[in-house]
Amino acid sequence: MEIAVLGTGMVGRTLAGAFVELGHEVAMGSRSRDNEAAAAWSAEAGDRASHGTYADAAATAELVFNCTAGAASLAALAAAGSENLAGKVLVDVANPLDFSQGMPPSLFVSVTDSLGEQVQRAFPEARVVKALNTINHLVMVDPGRVSGEGDVFVCGDDEDAKAQVHELLHGLGWADEAIIDLGDISAARATEAYLLLWLRLMGALGTADFNIKVTR
Amino acid sequence: MEIAVLGTGMVGRTLAGAFVELGHEVAMGSRSRDNEAAAAWSAEAGDRASHGTYADAAATAELVFNCTAGAASLAALAAAGSENLAGKVLVDVANPLDFSQGMPPSLFVSVTDSLGEQVQRAFPEARVVKALNTINHLVMVDPGRVSGEGDVFVCGDDEDAKAQVHELLHGLGWADEAIIDLGDISAARATEAYLLLWLRLMGALGTADFNIKVTR
Repeated sequence: MEIAVLGTGMVGRTLAGAFVELGHEVAMGSRSRDNEAAAAWSAEAGDRASHGTYADAAATAELVFNCTAGAASLAALAAAGSENLAGKVLVDVANPLDFSQGMPPSLFVSVTDSLGEQVQRAFPEARVVKALNTINHLVMVDPGRVSGEGDVFVCGDDEDAKAQVHELLHGLGWADEAIIDLGDISAARATEAYLLLWLRLMGALGTADFNIKVTR
Repeated sequence: MEIAVLGTGMVGRTLAGAFVELGHEVAMGSRSRDNEAAAAWSAEAGDRASHGTYADAAATAELVFNCTAGAASLAALAAAGSENLAGKVLVDVANPLDFSQGMPPSLFVSVTDSLGEQVQRAFPEARVVKALNTINHLVMVDPGRVSGEGDVFVCGDDEDAKAQVHELLHGLGWADEAIIDLGDISAARATEAYLLLWLRLMGALGTADFNIKVTR
C-alpha cells in the first residue's frame, strides 16, 4: 500500500520505518522538499521510502497518517491539499497539546471538541480515523515491548476506514482484541483527554514506555 | 475509624457498606435528617452505621468521603460545614459530569481545572485526596471482580492524607502496586478527564464492570 506519513518527528519516523519494513511504499511529507530529517530517513529506509512536501507525499498515497504536532496539524493538512486527502483514509495520530502554560502540557481543545473532529470538519471528504495517539511511538510499533501489552483505541465516522486501520494496526503487532473501536469521531475527545492522564502517569512512572489495558 | 460518607447514591451506599464491613463506624450524610435512602441503609447496615445531615455526618468523622453528584458537591460540602472538614482527610470521589448536552455526558470543568481542585480551593483547610473516581462503584470495593484487576489513582497535596487513603484502599482489596500516586491535587484534571474515555469504553463494551491496568 502507498502510505503518506506527514511529519518528520519521532512518531512520523517510527511509524514510517515500521510501514517500510512491512513492505509498504512510504512517502514522508514535510513543509519543504529538502527537509533534512525526511531526506535522512528516506535515504536510510531504502527503496520503498521517499520524501517530499506534504502535498507530494499525500498526492500519490492511498492512506495518509497525520504525525505532525497537534498545533501545526490543520496547517500541515491544508498544505497537503484537500484534493489530495479527499476520499482517503486519514489517520490522525496527533494530540492537541498546549505547552503555553508549562509542563505538563494541557490541551488546546475543550472537553466538547477534539483535534480529530477539527480535522474531520476541515477536510469533510477525508475519512478520518483517530488512532495511536494514546501511546508512545515505540509502543505504537511494538506493543509487546510493554509487559502485559495493552490496548489501542480507534474511532471515526467511516466503518470501512476503521477496518483498514484495524488491519494496519494488526500488521504492527496489535492483537485483534487489543484494538478497541470507541465509535464515531467524537470519541476523539475521549482519547485526547486521556493524554492528561498519560502525562501524569509518565511523571509518576518516570517513563513513557507504558500503556493501559482495559480489564473486564 | 469514624468515616462520613456524603451522598446516598450507589457510590455512597456501596462504599459506606464496605467500610462498615471492615469494622469502621460510618455516618451517611444527606441533605435532610430523614432521608429515606440513608435511613434504610443505616437500618440494614447495623450498629456501626448511622445517618444524618451532611453536617451531622461530618462533625464527628475523622475522614470524609464526598460521594455526591459532581454538580452538587460544592453545595453539599458547604452544608457539611468548613469547620467540620478542617484538618480532615476529604476523599473526593465525585466527577464533574455535565449531562446538559445529552449522552454521553461531558465535563463541567475545562482541561485546566478540576472538581478536585475546586473542592480544595473552597475548603483550604481540608486535606483533599482525589481517588476512586475512575471506576464503577462495584469495582471500587471489589477490585478482583475485574479479571486481571486494574489500578486506582490517588492525588492530593498532603502526603499523610494520601497515605491514609492508601491504607483504606488497601483495606478494600487494592494491592499496594495497584494504587498509583499521580502527584498533587492538580492531577485530578487527569483522572476526571479520563472519565470521557471511561464513558466511551462503557458504551463500546456494554458494561461498567471494567477498569484499566497500567502495563509497563
